[in-house]
Amino acid sequence: MNVLNRTIEAIDGQDQAARAQAKERLDQLIMPHWALGRLMDLALDLAGICGTVKPALEKKMIVVMAGDHGITDSGVSLFPKEVTVEMVRGFVAGVAGINVLAKQAGANVKVVDMGVAGDLSELAKGGDIIDRKIAAGTNNFAEGAAMTREQAVQALEAGIAVAQKLAAQTDVFGTGDMGIGNTSPSSAMIATFCDMPVAEVVGRGTGLDDNQLKNKVAILEEALELNNPDANDPIDVLSKVGGFEIAGIAGLILGAAALKKPIVVDGFISTAGAVLAGRIAPLSKEYMICAHKSVEKGHIAALADLGKEPLLDLQFRLGEGTGAAVAMNLIEGAVGILTEMATFSEAAVSEAK
Amino acid sequence: MNVLNRTIEAIDGQDQAARAQAKERLDQLIMPHWALGRLMDLALDLAGICGTVKPALEKKMIVVMAGDHGITDSGVSLFPKEVTVEMVRGFVAGVAGINVLAKQAGANVKVVDMGVAGDLSELAKGGDIIDRKIAAGTNNFAEGAAMTREQAVQALEAGIAVAQKLAAQTDVFGTGDMGIGNTSPSSAMIATFCDMPVAEVVGRGTGLDDNQLKNKVAILEEALELNNPDANDPIDVLSKVGGFEIAGIAGLILGAAALKKPIVVDGFISTAGAVLAGRIAPLSKEYMICAHKSVEKGHIAALADLGKEPLLDLQFRLGEGTGAAVAMNLIEGAVGILTEMATFSEAAVSEAK
Repeated sequence: MNVLNRTIEAIDGQDQAARAQAKERLDQLIMPHWALGRLMDLALDLAGICGTVKPALEKKMIVVMAGDHGITDSGVSLFPKEVTVEMVRGFVAGVAGINVLAKQAGANVKVVDMGVAGDLSELAKGGDIIDRKIAAGTNNFAEGAAMTREQAVQALEAGIAVAQKLAAQTDVFGTGDMGIGNTSPSSAMIATFCDMPVAEVVGRGTGLDDNQLKNKVAILEEALELNNPDANDPIDVLSKVGGFEIAGIAGLILGAAALKKPIVVDGFISTAGAVLAGRIAPLSKEYMICAHKSVEKGHIAALADLGKEPLLDLQFRLGEGTGAAVAMNLIEGAVGILTEMATFSEAAVSEAK
Repeated sequence: MNVLNRTIEAIDGQDQAARAQAKERLDQLIMPHWALGRLMDLALDLAGICGTVKPALEKKMIVVMAGDHGITDSGVSLFPKEVTVEMVRGFVAGVAGINVLAKQAGANVKVVDMGVAGDLSELAKGGDIIDRKIAAGTNNFAEGAAMTREQAVQALEAGIAVAQKLAAQTDVFGTGDMGIGNTSPSSAMIATFCDMPVAEVVGRGTGLDDNQLKNKVAILEEALELNNPDANDPIDVLSKVGGFEIAGIAGLILGAAALKKPIVVDGFISTAGAVLAGRIAPLSKEYMICAHKSVEKGHIAALADLGKEPLLDLQFRLGEGTGAAVAMNLIEGAVGILTEMATFSEAAVSEAK
């Protein structure tokens, strides 16, 4: 709890002076006022986060937090649990969606075993993944708490430790997730934090049909009734209906915010982690950049809770950090606008009448 | 007219066999079905356009067509006409929005003088820009036709020639525009082609206030009444209420389509050119990728006319090809998904139950 508390205390808001200075420059660039819209808003945030009008954000790192979920035993997902391990091997081999899109954006990918129900020790020994395994998957929260309160804190602190470990090789973080069944804990967490009926938050995940969806909603309704998580106690919510990789994502966000580094939040699962981080340390929200609007139904509610507009809407529903990777291009573009464009006076261009 | 007619005849639809082959592979990639949404739709188009499931789209080229507009004499824009020349110099110096965003996306920028009302011969001699000047700006179409029918064809053919000239150094084209006042001809063209009241198409351009906007609408309404362009004769519309750079964009699109190369269409002005190209050669639409949704009001109508969904909505209203540049990242990502990801069987990942 010491690491977590120290991290929360270390998180300060954006640098308002740097934001104001950035605004002044952006207002004078050779174009109609604010004609590059969202990228200019983003440039303001990046200046505020980094505390400078010349943010250097070359080293991009997508952290894919992986974990398994006991609730898959209740039949909430189309894919078997083994896919989590298989996909981690795919990430290491470089053949998955995140590898392709991270490469396009010039980002590195680091996989963290937060709680995969399979043996990945060989990959960890070889340095291909980071081993922070809390347990071999959560308990089935349809039958009781997903994890202990101690494990919840441990998982958050593991995420913080990953941010610190990667800090030297990272200017901007991106979140990613892998975990068969993880739309279920994400939906349960978001329904709890946003005080919404679970049916309004639950989506089709990897592709459930109408009956399977109805079944998933019923299972989650019962599980929430059974666990009765306290929305005002974020760690209670995490421990009762959360997941290890979701905790890892929240910890990574808190760690990045404490380090004053921007963190690009991927889709539905990552946003569940972001809402959790925002409840633990509200100022951490000032360091989050929401990459994209997921197809998953509850994502809109989660984004609204954060008060964020996503940058992209490409109808993604994959996770892995794929949306965050695509958004890294926009981060780079926003920095370019702030640092490389000329002002009207610098370029001797006539201004509006 | 020979070049134009030959180009129209050379434009064929997408390769359906390559599309089908791409679909088959994309259906089997290691992720829930079609979980990378719009990028997978885009991958299908790229396979169909290039006629292969291994499209190589490394060489990216944004072509910025520049021209001036007599209608600025009627007070439709906030910026003085000289800004067109000044901005072309900015593009060559590398300090404008398009330079920054093209660099981010790994794209080259080529500026074409289609009809700038200023002397750019020095830049043309030095090879910094391509000189295809039809005239020093269009006539004020509030007082008569913007250009002759011969000039309209000449401008279209100049755009085609630019596509051919740049073909060897270009795998994927992007359109861009520079021309103070060019939302006016674009609005007039789109209102005519889409049979819409001009008031529903005209936007604030570089930042008109309510009164200035009302004035712009009135001027365009009168100009359309005076010129009475024939919506069924695309070259009549272009010559009466168009612009040289808009014709250049349309020609570039036709040229790219004839070469079977994808062309990324930027914002409002470029889409006016795309609608024109689509009316001249309907199959050219199969080669167009619409980059983004502009803030400019009439853009939605123009996109609907093309039957296209834009990839991005970043609240841009700059032109220059800035939206096309950002979208080049998505093109690259889509190619990566198609050519670099593994299938379930290749990666030995278990499939859905």
